[in-house]
Amino acid sequence: MQFNQEMIQELAEHIYDLDAEVYAQLGSSLGRVFNRDREGCVRDMVKLMNSRDRAHLLRSELALISNMARTIPDREIRKMVMKEYNEILCQVKALPTSFGECDILNPELASLNALNLKQRFSQNDHRIICIGRTYGSGGTDIGFALADALKINYYDAEIFSEVLKRLDVEKDRIVDRGSFTEHSDIQGERAFAENGHMSLKEWMRAFSRYHGLSRRDAVFFNQSDLICDMARKESFIVMGRCADVILTNNRIPHISIFITAPFEQRVRRAMEINKKLTEKQARRLVKKLDRQHTRYYDFYTGRKWGDSVNYDLCLNSAAYGIEGAVEFILRMLEQNAS
Amino acid sequence: MQFNQEMIQELAEHIYDLDAEVYAQLGSSLGRVFNRDREGCVRDMVKLMNSRDRAHLLRSELALISNMARTIPDREIRKMVMKEYNEILCQVKALPTSFGECDILNPELASLNALNLKQRFSQNDHRIICIGRTYGSGGTDIGFALADALKINYYDAEIFSEVLKRLDVEKDRIVDRGSFTEHSDIQGERAFAENGHMSLKEWMRAFSRYHGLSRRDAVFFNQSDLICDMARKESFIVMGRCADVILTNNRIPHISIFITAPFEQRVRRAMEINKKLTEKQARRLVKKLDRQHTRYYDFYTGRKWGDSVNYDLCLNSAAYGIEGAVEFILRMLEQNAS
Repeated sequence: MQFNQEMIQELAEHIYDLDAEVYAQLGSSLGRVFNRDREGCVRDMVKLMNSRDRAHLLRSELALISNMARTIPDREIRKMVMKEYNEILCQVKALPTSFGECDILNPELASLNALNLKQRFSQNDHRIICIGRTYGSGGTDIGFALADALKINYYDAEIFSEVLKRLDVEKDRIVDRGSFTEHSDIQGERAFAENGHMSLKEWMRAFSRYHGLSRRDAVFFNQSDLICDMARKESFIVMGRCADVILTNNRIPHISIFITAPFEQRVRRAMEINKKLTEKQARRLVKKLDRQHTRYYDFYTGRKWGDSVNYDLCLNSAAYGIEGAVEFILRMLEQNAS
Repeated sequence: MQFNQEMIQELAEHIYDLDAEVYAQLGSSLGRVFNRDREGCVRDMVKLMNSRDRAHLLRSELALISNMARTIPDREIRKMVMKEYNEILCQVKALPTSFGECDILNPELASLNALNLKQRFSQNDHRIICIGRTYGSGGTDIGFALADALKINYYDAEIFSEVLKRLDVEKDRIVDRGSFTEHSDIQGERAFAENGHMSLKEWMRAFSRYHGLSRRDAVFFNQSDLICDMARKESFIVMGRCADVILTNNRIPHISIFITAPFEQRVRRAMEINKKLTEKQARRLVKKLDRQHTRYYDFYTGRKWGDSVNYDLCLNSAAYGIEGAVEFILRMLEQNAS
């Protein structure tokens, strides 16, 4: 729709009249939104409609009119007035300067957010849920129960190190065998082809993977590879491991959730989990683990751990409880899947 | 269920056997979870089951078994094994030291969280949604569109100041009339009774409300009263105003949502809204408004603005867009209402 100043003037008059109509219907209400002379009010509105940065003031005024209109006792009249209001709202939204125009959407982020309604018919059939959590928030319990409810795999640090240990054993076997044949390219290639579909190139990459890396980094990068590999094959829940950022960087859609709870609540829970802890020790433990978490996340991602801009969703588990949080997340997913 | 050491021993053996069964079915998998001698493994598990603070290790081991079990190709066998796994899981959860035992639930917080599934048949029919948001996150647009979609009232700072201005006019009228009769208690009381159901006590409170308060504080406390009054009467959406904390302190159930987006995204949007801003100015503006917001929230609530422990839910609007965020919130509510 193209707008000229005449149309804007008309729209402003329309708003003024709607306000008058609502006032006439309610009489004893808080008064009109525009309670000065018609000409002056319309002129001010036209100014607002032409200025992009103050458009929200017009919105507040419209909201105030509609708030009042909703209290009109006569059902038929209320319906009529609200219809008029909606028409006006549509027109205001269509204004080139309107508040409805600039979105905050980051198309790249949104395309990776599997909670987004727009994404629900995407090609990606795997449901990958990354859960970050603070110590003592019950996040691990929530993740585990969620995996159980969804009947999908659950991965945490312990499982990863267990899986990687086993993969390492397998890899070492390959490396060992490889070393026997490394002077013979042809033989070497054949050996790998027979042995787990590894090309020489892949083997070289695997072989050099640890070089120049600390063990911690090697573990991290191994985990990252594993997470991306798995994400292409199956649905799962992964706890921590900066999985959200790893998947985002690899452009793999997922859901990222951060679970936390007030500090005092977490201290109390830490003491319940480990009865030997005094309150002072529990406080120190929770703080220490928060610091470590923060450092780990920052080191590998350059982002601030637990900052809500880094996740699709943050939950305060104290407001739901473990069972409630699981139910809440399931609710979002069910709808998503339907 | 009462557990004795014999039962724990039995449970550990059951887990060991399940692992062996899964391995037998898969053969070429990553190997068994418990790959040492039966006796040693069972002894270790019994130790884990008796220690509360390391119970999560047992959970990881169980998860690893179930992750593998889910890949058993034969459907019937897989079903049987998973059934066995679920039985074991139930028993482990029932252990006095188990990870399933300590909840993070804060019953008071949960009873005020209207998103909680447990609350959905509560007496409270009003739906009050408090939305905090960072500047440039599109939070205001999301709130406004949400009110429109839910057909409930929308309140923001502008509307509040407008409403309070009008209420003040009315109050002044009362105060004026009151001052004529303040030497006559009986007459005074009658006058108030006739005039808006105000008792003398209430009037005294209203009259003295501004004394000793700065205008800013008076506005805040007036807004707080208004929010609580309204919450008893109607459903609505309220933007900012520390409404979440005000309602929590007054024990009124509500939903608290914080909406934010990455800084760069917000700067870009600020520039789109106000085309006159240079990038440098926009950065400064966003930072300044964040600081002001933080100070305001901290001053009146003593809490950290935007910290996810203070809300039921935090959303990153850049991952949804305005429309997507509205759809997402509606989705949670629809389910809640059903």
